[in-house]
Amino acid sequence: MRIVIDAMGSDECPVPDVAGAVLAAQEWNDALLLVGDPQQIRRQLERHNTRGLNLEIVPAAQQILMTDKPGQVGQSKPQSSMHIGMNMVKDGLADAFVTAGNTGAAMAVATLFTLRRIQGVRRPALSTIIRVGSQNVILLDIGANADSKPEWMGQFAVMGKIYAQHALGIQNPRVALLSNGEEEGKGNQLVHDAQAILRHLDLNFTGNVEPKDLVRGIADVVVADGFVGNITVKSLEAVAGVLFDLIRAEIKRDVISTVGGLLARRAFRRVYKQVDPFEVGGAPLLGVNGVVIIGHGRSNAKAIRNAIRQARLAVRGQIVEHIQAGLRQHLDTIQDVEYQTRGG
Amino acid sequence: MRIVIDAMGSDECPVPDVAGAVLAAQEWNDALLLVGDPQQIRRQLERHNTRGLNLEIVPAAQQILMTDKPGQVGQSKPQSSMHIGMNMVKDGLADAFVTAGNTGAAMAVATLFTLRRIQGVRRPALSTIIRVGSQNVILLDIGANADSKPEWMGQFAVMGKIYAQHALGIQNPRVALLSNGEEEGKGNQLVHDAQAILRHLDLNFTGNVEPKDLVRGIADVVVADGFVGNITVKSLEAVAGVLFDLIRAEIKRDVISTVGGLLARRAFRRVYKQVDPFEVGGAPLLGVNGVVIIGHGRSNAKAIRNAIRQARLAVRGQIVEHIQAGLRQHLDTIQDVEYQTRGG
Repeated sequence: MRIVIDAMGSDECPVPDVAGAVLAAQEWNDALLLVGDPQQIRRQLERHNTRGLNLEIVPAAQQILMTDKPGQVGQSKPQSSMHIGMNMVKDGLADAFVTAGNTGAAMAVATLFTLRRIQGVRRPALSTIIRVGSQNVILLDIGANADSKPEWMGQFAVMGKIYAQHALGIQNPRVALLSNGEEEGKGNQLVHDAQAILRHLDLNFTGNVEPKDLVRGIADVVVADGFVGNITVKSLEAVAGVLFDLIRAEIKRDVISTVGGLLARRAFRRVYKQVDPFEVGGAPLLGVNGVVIIGHGRSNAKAIRNAIRQARLAVRGQIVEHIQAGLRQHLDTIQDVEYQTRGG
Repeated sequence: MRIVIDAMGSDECPVPDVAGAVLAAQEWNDALLLVGDPQQIRRQLERHNTRGLNLEIVPAAQQILMTDKPGQVGQSKPQSSMHIGMNMVKDGLADAFVTAGNTGAAMAVATLFTLRRIQGVRRPALSTIIRVGSQNVILLDIGANADSKPEWMGQFAVMGKIYAQHALGIQNPRVALLSNGEEEGKGNQLVHDAQAILRHLDLNFTGNVEPKDLVRGIADVVVADGFVGNITVKSLEAVAGVLFDLIRAEIKRDVISTVGGLLARRAFRRVYKQVDPFEVGGAPLLGVNGVVIIGHGRSNAKAIRNAIRQARLAVRGQIVEHIQAGLRQHLDTIQDVEYQTRGG
């Protein structure tokens, strides 16, 4: 397997990006291709013991920044590490692309300029994997599309199911729709229309779930429109951040609590490990002609290593091929239901 | 001041509902009217020392349950404590109504059967008050409407601003729009259209905020459509619940951490007090012809007492009168902008 890693992606690039690739190369036998500024990459590689590791450098003259506008990078930076890396996947020179860079730019480069959509895919979906204890819940779309149509959400469900099944090894994944209540009457118009489509697809569709179900692992795949999915993920992250800050501040405010906090630090570490987004590392952009894993900009080396693990799982599970086949099967159904629900 | 308290509201009613009213009566000099089953209310009152307190009982023959469908209670239970209590407000026999009962039913009874909308209000909005340290952030709509129109959201902004200013005493409240990013280009179509309206209103509109800003107090009033607002609140609650559960479980898993947890319990109590939704107690349904405060079904006595405090603030701040006046002023602007954004 050959995986391209964007060395110029993360906020602290290329430090964690290269270090994460080294960790992955030590663990697995894949060829890892670091794409970016060769001098900077080489300098980072020299800080590690890379003897015997299957690491290559692929030069890229340009770097996409977090501040770059996704709509402009296609034309302004055609020699970026994202363009070059994704084109290698497109041309069959690599099996997957991993980046912790600008999410919007990665989606634009993948969808519009390099890999492009799988035939039949109306819109790609950005996913995230929420860890619930030892379980993984895939939430999608979390922001590839600001406004969604019900039939796109039907496709998100199919793609999410395929990822859960073939990459994460979940048998007969439970697919649910994110709503403001479990009852069938709940939801906005888009949820109602999407529900009508999901009911008719060959899915283990279990109905509506609320945010509390999402973090308690009631479903394996949770479908939302990109705006709601994005707000949900950001809400989950926001509370976790504020709560940990509050606990830290309050524990320092009196001596006895400080001692207590020190004694309980193993418990806190276990809690933190369970909610650490870097344990997953990255999540796939589904619906494009190649495996693309997008990690958080704040990724550390462990997160990059884990994002590479997600890429391996997706390549092994032949996600792209399964989505191609799966959508052909579902496409007619989606169009039929769409036609009926529109009163046609 | 005369405040009606729904004695048959909370999950454990009438126990916390009556106990909370007793707490409020001890603290403030208002007349508190407990509406519900007189026998059950009397039995609860006997458990407290009520000598000299200004507490009355108002009989209601029917009780709305959490399982009742909001659309049906208007006809099936016209003698409910909600109907009778809100009609007292409507008829000028009381100044406010407080309930910890079925939220959907309370909205339906208020909007369709008793108080009805303030003239000019397109849709009422359910709000919630998120505590950020010592600061209060009003988020609305959190579910009065599953699908919203941009011009309704303009009204939500005006009503939220008036509540912040007159009930919570916030000078020149900062009003923001909940979105998936702070940049102007972010958001779905509804957010874009609402933004165009908010920009033209006489508000201290500060632009888009993300969920993380919501819990960090960047704005005083945050406007969302009811579906997104509801999902956001539920996401915030869900993570807090899961995290506290996780911490509790992990602290118990080894002896040293257990000891540490015991020592740090004062710190935890301080954290909990800062995020405890019962500290606010309830939030107003804005846009109806009377003060209605809706609390959580799981309310305890303290939450009911604090919901009564919210009712006092709203009555003192003459919220209903200010919304009537404020909307007259804003209504023309909203219609003008609406007309322009529709390309008229």
